[in-house]
Amino acid sequence: MNETSGRRGAFITVEGVDGAGKTTQMGFIEQWLAGRGIEVVRTREPGGTGLGERLRDLLVRESALDISAHSELMLVFAARRQHLEERILPALESGRWVISDRFTDATYAYQGAGRGIDAARIEMLEQWVQEGLTPDLTLVLDLPPEAGMARSGRRGGATDRFEDEAMAFKRAVRECYLDRAARYADRMRVVDAGGSVATVQQEISNLLQDFLTARGGH
Amino acid sequence: MNETSGRRGAFITVEGVDGAGKTTQMGFIEQWLAGRGIEVVRTREPGGTGLGERLRDLLVRESALDISAHSELMLVFAARRQHLEERILPALESGRWVISDRFTDATYAYQGAGRGIDAARIEMLEQWVQEGLTPDLTLVLDLPPEAGMARSGRRGGATDRFEDEAMAFKRAVRECYLDRAARYADRMRVVDAGGSVATVQQEISNLLQDFLTARGGH
Repeated sequence: MNETSGRRGAFITVEGVDGAGKTTQMGFIEQWLAGRGIEVVRTREPGGTGLGERLRDLLVRESALDISAHSELMLVFAARRQHLEERILPALESGRWVISDRFTDATYAYQGAGRGIDAARIEMLEQWVQEGLTPDLTLVLDLPPEAGMARSGRRGGATDRFEDEAMAFKRAVRECYLDRAARYADRMRVVDAGGSVATVQQEISNLLQDFLTARGGH
Repeated sequence: MNETSGRRGAFITVEGVDGAGKTTQMGFIEQWLAGRGIEVVRTREPGGTGLGERLRDLLVRESALDISAHSELMLVFAARRQHLEERILPALESGRWVISDRFTDATYAYQGAGRGIDAARIEMLEQWVQEGLTPDLTLVLDLPPEAGMARSGRRGGATDRFEDEAMAFKRAVRECYLDRAARYADRMRVVDAGGSVATVQQEISNLLQDFLTARGGH
C-alpha cells in the first residue's frame, strides 16, 4: 500500500470563502491524486475528529451560547491540535497525503481579519499548537465578494446595513487570504475561482502537477 | 450596593485535591465575606459560564471522546478566557469579590504535574489568556494522598497497579501545589485540610482576616 516505503505524505489545504467552490474542487483534487496512485485522507476544519466535530457544533450551530472572539480562537486551535495528533500527522507519517478543507490560513482570515484579533496573537497559538508544521501546498480559491453576491442573485438594488457589514467582513477575509498568499508564496497559490468549473479545474491540475514535479513524484 | 464606589473587588481561588473539603470551605468563605458586607460571586472551573459548563461536560463526562493532553489544556484555557471575560472581570470591576473553586494553579497541578505537560508550555497559554491577571489570594487545601485514602476507608492491604498509578498522580498534583505555594508565597497560602472542619475553618478565617487587613478593608 505504501510503496514509497516511509516517505512522508504531503499536506495540502484548500482555502476560500463560502461559495468559492471548495467542496467541488476538494473532490476533484482527491480524484486527481488518486489517479496518480496517491492514497488520500480528506478532512476539514473545524472538525476532522470526534472532538473537532463537537467543537464545530458549539461554534457553528449554537448561536445562543456566548463565546468571545478570543475563546473562539482557542477552541479553533484546540480542535486543530487534536486534528493534527489524531489524524493529520499519523496519515502523513504513514505516507498518505492529507487534503484539508481549511486550516490555519482560515483562522487568520476569519478570526483575524474578520473578527479583528491581532495576527500576532494568532501566531502565538499557531506556534504553540503546530510547533513548526505548515501545509506543503495551499490553494486559495479566490472570488470577489461582489461575484459571490451576483452568484446568489443579489445584484443591484438597495442593501441594508447588515448586508454592508457582511460585505465588509467578506472583503477583509479575502484581502487577508491574498496578503498571505503574497507573503507565503512558497506554499500558497491563488486560483481564480470566478471561471467555469472546467477552467478552475484545469488551473488546479496545473498547480498540482507543478507541485508533484517539484517534489519529484509522490 | 457598591458603597466602595468603584474599588475593584478581590479575586480569591480555592485549590486542592478532591476530598480536601473544597465545597464545604467555599461555602464557609462565602458566608464569612458576606458577614462583612462583601458581595460575593461564587464560581468554579472548569465551568462558570455556559460555554465553560459545556466544555466541562466534554472533559469530564465524555470518556469515549479522544482528547489529547495538549487539546485538553487548550480547552481548559478557552473556558478560562470566557470565564474571565463573561463573569470574573465584570464582577471584579463592579466591586464584587469572586471566589472560584479552582483556577490556573489547578492547571499546573493536574495537566502539568499530573499529565506531564511542560510548565513552560502552560505558562505561554496562561499569559495569552490572562494577560497578567492572577488571583489576589489562593488557598490551597492540603491533604496527603494517604490521608485521602484513609478517609475513604482504603487503608492497609494490597493495592493494584491502577491504585499505585492513581496514588503517584495524586502525589505529583500535591507536590505541584506545594511547590507553587512556596514560589508564589505573596498570594498563596497552604491550609492543612487534615484537621476537623472547625480547625480548618479557624485557619481560613485567620487567613481571610489577614488578607482583609492587608488590603485595608474591602
